[in-house]
Amino acid sequence: MMPRVFLNEVLEVGLTVSIQGEDGHHFSRVLRVRSGEQVALASQGQGYLGEITGVDSGVVQVRVLGHLPSHEPVSPVYLVQGLAKGDKIDVIIQHNTELGVAGFLLVETKRSVVKWDTKKRAAKVERWQKIAKEAASQAQRDTVPLVRAASCVEEIRGFLASLSASQLLFLDEDENETGLGAALAGVENASTVLVVGPEGGWDGAERQTWVNDFGATAVTLGPRTLRTETAGFAAVAAVLHHNREMGG
Amino acid sequence: MMPRVFLNEVLEVGLTVSIQGEDGHHFSRVLRVRSGEQVALASQGQGYLGEITGVDSGVVQVRVLGHLPSHEPVSPVYLVQGLAKGDKIDVIIQHNTELGVAGFLLVETKRSVVKWDTKKRAAKVERWQKIAKEAASQAQRDTVPLVRAASCVEEIRGFLASLSASQLLFLDEDENETGLGAALAGVENASTVLVVGPEGGWDGAERQTWVNDFGATAVTLGPRTLRTETAGFAAVAAVLHHNREMGG
Repeated sequence: MMPRVFLNEVLEVGLTVSIQGEDGHHFSRVLRVRSGEQVALASQGQGYLGEITGVDSGVVQVRVLGHLPSHEPVSPVYLVQGLAKGDKIDVIIQHNTELGVAGFLLVETKRSVVKWDTKKRAAKVERWQKIAKEAASQAQRDTVPLVRAASCVEEIRGFLASLSASQLLFLDEDENETGLGAALAGVENASTVLVVGPEGGWDGAERQTWVNDFGATAVTLGPRTLRTETAGFAAVAAVLHHNREMGG
Repeated sequence: MMPRVFLNEVLEVGLTVSIQGEDGHHFSRVLRVRSGEQVALASQGQGYLGEITGVDSGVVQVRVLGHLPSHEPVSPVYLVQGLAKGDKIDVIIQHNTELGVAGFLLVETKRSVVKWDTKKRAAKVERWQKIAKEAASQAQRDTVPLVRAASCVEEIRGFLASLSASQLLFLDEDENETGLGAALAGVENASTVLVVGPEGGWDGAERQTWVNDFGATAVTLGPRTLRTETAGFAAVAAVLHHNREMGG
């Protein structure tokens, strides 16, 4: 597998770009790449094939040779995740980034054991964003999913407004009628937001907000009880499979 | 959620059974159940509603009140997993048991970093079986998936023969044509075995054995590279969703 790096600049075939900073260090000192080797470059959601043309004191020069096929789902799937304790969110970000999630919103809920102060929250998000970048690179994605946080209804509203996704599915262990499969049936390649509660679930008022104010459809994943760290991943996999994004 | 216990005896409505041993201790001393409380009993792949009629020094008496709806997939999905290092297999067993996997085969492969001697293998399987039981209980399943191990082709052959599953899908990162979704299209509720390699993948000879000798279909999960601990779970979720086992 070719090493992959995310760049911010707009790439064009024929252009030569520099990989610097942490990535430059990683490529030159850890991977010990050499001139003539091929690498994958990802920028603006697209993948490019590059050839290394020079390595010098932590800076790697790469010439853009051509385009690579897209590694991104056509219809994005976003994950809203109730804040959970320990390193569960780390694992959730890592696994779901691999799978192809387009973006995350971590939400402090009434039953979340973990509570944020403003400073902690920013530091946490920064750390999760780094985990997402590493996972995206490992999974050979063309884009790093954005990790955001919300501590109140208005922040959630802002997140949802920014996506204008066409379906909002609220995973609900108290829902007995509408299943995820039933909700997806007949829906073709919709952009989707999946909402997963914390360990203790959402409280009644929060559930009302999601369903009544935000218009989410409450769905069950079936009769087996999944924990917060498995429910989201299972639902994302199901939606991506439904959208034919996991091998047709 | 009602506490759940797995029993070996054949249950019938009206019967009174004893929960003893570790489970009896757990119910009486940790959960501190009392007479009149309801519990879920699972035996022979079926769930029953029970009422506690007596608690005495680590032994709990339960009267069987009636049947509970099935929590098991109609079409079983089995997971063959190449041995991986660290506690990855623990997590794989736990997450996939929650999801609904019917049984596991852990396979020592050429590229597995972990190698077994006979004694270690038995102890490992016993430990994983315990993890499966705990996860099955937590997920409210009616059955504990059986965990088995294989160190050679003949043991794998024996496992596959014991299942007589109708499709055998080999997750293959070198496969570019047949996707998981394409392989499942048109197949309705087939019992399925999913085969996942270790971190380093299968070697060429192993792949040949799976495809040529065992008749597996090599499939890709799409352009994003999943790690061994995420690939199986994603594929199991996709197959269960395809079979309408995750909420229709």
